[in-house]
Amino acid sequence: MTSPRFGVDSLHDLATSLLARGGVGTDAAQLVARSLLAADRAGIFSHGLLRLPLYLEVVAAGGIDPTSEPVVVRKFGGVTVLDGRCAFGQVTMQRAVELATESARTHGIATVAVQGSSHFGAGQFWTSQLAQQGIAGILSSTTGPVAAPFGGSQPVLGTNPLTLSLPSAGEGPLVADLATTAGAYGKIVAARNDGTEIPDGWGVDAAGTPTTDPGAVLDGGALLPFGGHKGSGIAVLLEGLSAALTSASFAVNTVDIWQDQSSRMNTGHLLIALDLAAFGDVDEIRAKVAQLQEEVRSSAPDGSVHSPGDLEHAHLTANADAVDLSESTVESLRALAALHDIPFPTPLTEGSSR
Amino acid sequence: MTSPRFGVDSLHDLATSLLARGGVGTDAAQLVARSLLAADRAGIFSHGLLRLPLYLEVVAAGGIDPTSEPVVVRKFGGVTVLDGRCAFGQVTMQRAVELATESARTHGIATVAVQGSSHFGAGQFWTSQLAQQGIAGILSSTTGPVAAPFGGSQPVLGTNPLTLSLPSAGEGPLVADLATTAGAYGKIVAARNDGTEIPDGWGVDAAGTPTTDPGAVLDGGALLPFGGHKGSGIAVLLEGLSAALTSASFAVNTVDIWQDQSSRMNTGHLLIALDLAAFGDVDEIRAKVAQLQEEVRSSAPDGSVHSPGDLEHAHLTANADAVDLSESTVESLRALAALHDIPFPTPLTEGSSR
Repeated sequence: MTSPRFGVDSLHDLATSLLARGGVGTDAAQLVARSLLAADRAGIFSHGLLRLPLYLEVVAAGGIDPTSEPVVVRKFGGVTVLDGRCAFGQVTMQRAVELATESARTHGIATVAVQGSSHFGAGQFWTSQLAQQGIAGILSSTTGPVAAPFGGSQPVLGTNPLTLSLPSAGEGPLVADLATTAGAYGKIVAARNDGTEIPDGWGVDAAGTPTTDPGAVLDGGALLPFGGHKGSGIAVLLEGLSAALTSASFAVNTVDIWQDQSSRMNTGHLLIALDLAAFGDVDEIRAKVAQLQEEVRSSAPDGSVHSPGDLEHAHLTANADAVDLSESTVESLRALAALHDIPFPTPLTEGSSR
Repeated sequence: MTSPRFGVDSLHDLATSLLARGGVGTDAAQLVARSLLAADRAGIFSHGLLRLPLYLEVVAAGGIDPTSEPVVVRKFGGVTVLDGRCAFGQVTMQRAVELATESARTHGIATVAVQGSSHFGAGQFWTSQLAQQGIAGILSSTTGPVAAPFGGSQPVLGTNPLTLSLPSAGEGPLVADLATTAGAYGKIVAARNDGTEIPDGWGVDAAGTPTTDPGAVLDGGALLPFGGHKGSGIAVLLEGLSAALTSASFAVNTVDIWQDQSSRMNTGHLLIALDLAAFGDVDEIRAKVAQLQEEVRSSAPDGSVHSPGDLEHAHLTANADAVDLSESTVESLRALAALHDIPFPTPLTEGSSR
């Protein structure tokens, strides 16, 4: 598959223009565009501009209210409960990051429990803002229902992403950013479309029997958490932390905007911020995190091991000015641009490999 | 293997008497005994009385100072840094739980970053104390070096246990309590002793090649994290959170007391406490957690799925008054009792099955 390369600025202009035509205000449009582009730059294409057409459909259908602003509905000490009121997940999370930063400076540790939100994109877009401020982050979220607990067949869990992040004196932060499902939903859809099998351990059919048939997983079956009963335990607890502490909806009570664009998902996120300065000397802690990154990188004699977050950081840096997009993403964006009579950017190169 | 059953009170008396002979004060001895017995009662035998002979050797060799008291070395808002000063990990963690509870009441969210600690037993012993107070808990710890990151061969990580816990209106708390290694160290030692293989994915040999030979893992190889690169990412971040924020030692700078009983491990723990009352109506949140537990239990048509923590809670309740011990644990405790001229309790039954 060819992957044309585009200037980041030109894609940012395109995305903000498309969002503006959809009724999204300038600040929100720029934030959403920046978040999607950061994911594409980091190589996390599933959370990149691929999502923009869906977002526009959701705004049109009422699942996201582009004029809404999140509001603080509860505040006690280092705990803030924030209601996204159906704004873009990105708009709500940006406010959550600001509130968590401010509160962590005051209390050393702070949390923002978010309700009434939607998709927030890639988790590390938010925790890396904290890392740049010398703040460690823990972030979890609900999603729509896709995964069964270990041993089960009913999808009572979401993909329940988890992001853990520590500031480092090294080049990039130490960050683990993962969905707690063994495989990605999008890859299972792609396998069905391509007529291929999925790996063992990714899913079960409607009877709860493990299967490598993507169709059986998607039609009445369920994805499985990564890591067997251990990963399942983590996924269940993230469901509880993200939905119960936040008064948001569990996966079972959520209709994803991928399924119904008018759905107001009431997604919950829990963001915990730990200000390094409260724990000790910030430079010493950051140096120690950098030391851990080096130990991980040198844990194989051939130097082949990456520390968590290394690859995304390298991609982000390499793609500071330009980014590859898949042909299918380009085509859908080109069609939208034509519809709205917005000029489509000229690719810098055609058909480089992803 | 036969498993004689003993009264909990009689084992508690035995353990505290043995600890007292080792120079451990009454309060610390009772706490350590209670923590070990709670693990045996919950079926977590690896953290039960099996460990008592080692603990006594460690006290005698100087790795744990039974007269030491943990001290707060730093306090800012909801953040407390606690130095265990080589006390029993249990003594230090009990203080951490008290400090976290008090601070969470004041700030809504609080953390105790622990340095200078040792083994603390099973993590859920600490988070369930929080759960009983209506407080959610996140707990991580360093250990000695045993695990290589995904793709590596050098053991730069510990077993890095993680405990996540939420209070529930149901019978027991929702709690995930797991080592982040795929298999338990003790089971790999047992497999070598028994001449059996270990499961795929548990370890690598010295060259970093995956192996099912327990000897190759133990002699120059390494355990692997659970869940492939996702579990590895979590394990690395837990290493950073538990050692960098706490100014404790990384696994690579730790000599475990199992290897050298005079080792002062400088173990680090990070305990985060979230007071439900700061987030909303406590009864509503607890009811919602109970609802999640029910959804997980009913996620298989045959009702075979347990919610995380269910099995341990059922065992704890069933073994409130009496507990099974393995013959090998009984024999080692009997020998110690004879050495110190302490009466050994009479088993309630002989040879029930574990």
